[in-house]
Amino acid sequence: MTQTAEREALGRGEHARRRVLVAALEVLVEGGMPGFTMESVARRACASKATLYRHWPSPSALLVDAMDAEFRPSPDLDTGDLRADMISLVSGLATGLTGSRFPTLMAAFVDAAERDPALADLHAELTRRRREPLLRLLAGAVGRGELAADTDTELVVDLLAAPFFYRRLIAHHPIPAEMPGAVVDHVLASLRIGPSS
Amino acid sequence: MTQTAEREALGRGEHARRRVLVAALEVLVEGGMPGFTMESVARRACASKATLYRHWPSPSALLVDAMDAEFRPSPDLDTGDLRADMISLVSGLATGLTGSRFPTLMAAFVDAAERDPALADLHAELTRRRREPLLRLLAGAVGRGELAADTDTELVVDLLAAPFFYRRLIAHHPIPAEMPGAVVDHVLASLRIGPSS
Repeated sequence: MTQTAEREALGRGEHARRRVLVAALEVLVEGGMPGFTMESVARRACASKATLYRHWPSPSALLVDAMDAEFRPSPDLDTGDLRADMISLVSGLATGLTGSRFPTLMAAFVDAAERDPALADLHAELTRRRREPLLRLLAGAVGRGELAADTDTELVVDLLAAPFFYRRLIAHHPIPAEMPGAVVDHVLASLRIGPSS
Repeated sequence: MTQTAEREALGRGEHARRRVLVAALEVLVEGGMPGFTMESVARRACASKATLYRHWPSPSALLVDAMDAEFRPSPDLDTGDLRADMISLVSGLATGLTGSRFPTLMAAFVDAAERDPALADLHAELTRRRREPLLRLLAGAVGRGELAADTDTELVVDLLAAPFFYRRLIAHHPIPAEMPGAVVDHVLASLRIGPSS
């Protein structure tokens, strides 16, 4: 194969792969977890089941890739302005939850995880990855002495992220534009500030 | 009818009513919202559909009564010790979410509400009622000047309640016994204290 043909083949493969990932989320949004099978995704993507199994060993693996492709965790952020960086990361979450696809997919995971331990693990892993940029931002602030060394960064991320999921999925109330700032200010006010600040 | 016979008939009616409410939650836990019909609840309760419709005009009305009967909102609490009362109310929520029925039912509501606006309203109403004791406790503290007059009590209830739902349903992590105290202390530290304290 010439290099050009090789690049074209790679391009076609990558294109087909993306089409499957998009189809996977469509199937999940419409039918929920019970309807999520390799067969239904293959049909929606106009691909063969064999093609799907060449890329993904199981529906779970396909699902993780599809979620990652659509809802990439925010990139790391550490401008040195802790409050602004926290608001920026929290606003990204709020924006996702104000859209229509992300909360519907989250809701499907929440319910299906109750009946399927493998899915609960998968959902926990997706949540863990989404938390990482905030955790690293807080760890950086602890490292610089901006926050106290004994800050419970896991609990602080809970306090920052949870109100947005709760508003959207439990209370069914809108998330106003000022909410990320208000939540960050409450949480920052509750933190003991480290020695060097 | 003699008074005794009347009391007995009432007792039988109340007993049958409770049996239906218990059956309703069992049907919901097992089959989720799609399987929740007057027919399936009547079958489970060994009652007739006519009996159910005599008490409840619709499956939604039955569902609200069943949730209320099982998960009564905490009674009001205002001993004058704001921190202790907050911890007590938040601990009640944490205990419910550590059990097995309440989170599974919440998860079913979360997912079903995405596809059924009437159910989303119902879920919002159940959440609103569950929030009331905390809201009234905070309003009392504002009234006494223990908390600032401009305290956003709705946001404060979000901050207090959300982390427990998030841990259980989104992060799939355990809720440790010390979490209610830790969350309350963070939130209290973030509140401006009113003039008289």
